[in-house]
Amino acid sequence: MKNLILASTSTLHGQEYLEYLTPVLNSHFSDCNEILFIPYARPGGITHDEYTQSAQKAFEKIGLAVKGIHQFDSPSEAIKKAEGIFTGGGNTFLLVQQLYHFDLLQLLQEVLKTGIPYLGTSAGTNIAGLTMKTTNDMPIVYPPSFKTLGMVPFNINPHYLDPDPDSTHKGETRETRIREFHQFNTPPVVGLREGSWLEVKGNNIKLKGEPLARIFEAGLEAYEVEPETLLNDLA
Amino acid sequence: MKNLILASTSTLHGQEYLEYLTPVLNSHFSDCNEILFIPYARPGGITHDEYTQSAQKAFEKIGLAVKGIHQFDSPSEAIKKAEGIFTGGGNTFLLVQQLYHFDLLQLLQEVLKTGIPYLGTSAGTNIAGLTMKTTNDMPIVYPPSFKTLGMVPFNINPHYLDPDPDSTHKGETRETRIREFHQFNTPPVVGLREGSWLEVKGNNIKLKGEPLARIFEAGLEAYEVEPETLLNDLA
Repeated sequence: MKNLILASTSTLHGQEYLEYLTPVLNSHFSDCNEILFIPYARPGGITHDEYTQSAQKAFEKIGLAVKGIHQFDSPSEAIKKAEGIFTGGGNTFLLVQQLYHFDLLQLLQEVLKTGIPYLGTSAGTNIAGLTMKTTNDMPIVYPPSFKTLGMVPFNINPHYLDPDPDSTHKGETRETRIREFHQFNTPPVVGLREGSWLEVKGNNIKLKGEPLARIFEAGLEAYEVEPETLLNDLA
Repeated sequence: MKNLILASTSTLHGQEYLEYLTPVLNSHFSDCNEILFIPYARPGGITHDEYTQSAQKAFEKIGLAVKGIHQFDSPSEAIKKAEGIFTGGGNTFLLVQQLYHFDLLQLLQEVLKTGIPYLGTSAGTNIAGLTMKTTNDMPIVYPPSFKTLGMVPFNINPHYLDPDPDSTHKGETRETRIREFHQFNTPPVVGLREGSWLEVKGNNIKLKGEPLARIFEAGLEAYEVEPETLLNDLA
């Protein structure tokens, strides 16, 4: 009985951290007193403690405590005992490297399958897909594998960005990059625009939030889906 | 006696493939009759043959033939016999994976050190740096290492893009990504804007083209350098 919120971004322009998600998180984590925060994606600028504090500040509003996984002696024990888990954004290469380093990937998979409520934002959402091969991040470290949690039967591209028709820049558009992914990989990709999230409850995967999502399947034209669409058959 | 042209992009907006570089390539490859083209970065859309044809069309204007490395029985023999080498753009993960797959990386290093003229554009420029850890590309395949040619003592970020002050998108800016790289890696990074290239002649590394380049050194504020600046001491 999976129970996940997989958000494109933690923060919308002009808003506080997690602000737009607060009502959703209030019910998502209603059975919890304390959330385990995984700050591993954060590549610097602020410490893991400071990053955890921003999560604490956001969850305080709905009466929940937050503790960072780095504050535990054993990260795996922390995951085993967690009432709810939140993995924040940053760099997906770093997050995945750290999860392998602490040997947490399989454990996280097992725990999430038991129904422990999970929130991912950005990199924390990326790792819920089959692989991290549709991340937008820079490969600043070399993880031992690109394989991730596979909590949904497809890949996710957070912060999905439509092409700018006025651009004169010759870098690839996001759509081109995902098409390139499909030259070598078969899983569908959900392009999650900022303000969208996937709600995973058991076998139901539903698009939530205001924006449409853009779906890429190997060999097909990309297409848009409306909020409240079930993506259960996308595999 | 290295002899390399490392360009940010193959094509400027509104121009033909390699058009802005033609006068430079005319003198760079003046001792060659035929160029060996490495199309491995191309992740699809067009075949290696078609990609090679676009290079052929561009080099025809300066009287040079082009043959694709995929047309040879032995890619390593092709590199050993090459009079000049051009690695085109596409996806850097794919390019690096292919170079390792065919065991060409060390050979290419050795050949380029003998002074064989080389042209890289985009991914072909990325691989001239110490590692591919400052690529902008999506990790669509998993290469056995991120280590690349090290023909310059730093990393390169091709298609360098300044932050858009009007953007409301929450994805990281290019500058933020490179700062994140420096949390885990010490080599400087040259942000090469489109229209710029590095001219490497022996130990001299000079910025060419019209745009300034943006230099990132670990622990320092980023700064701009003018065309014709020597980057020999950047390491």
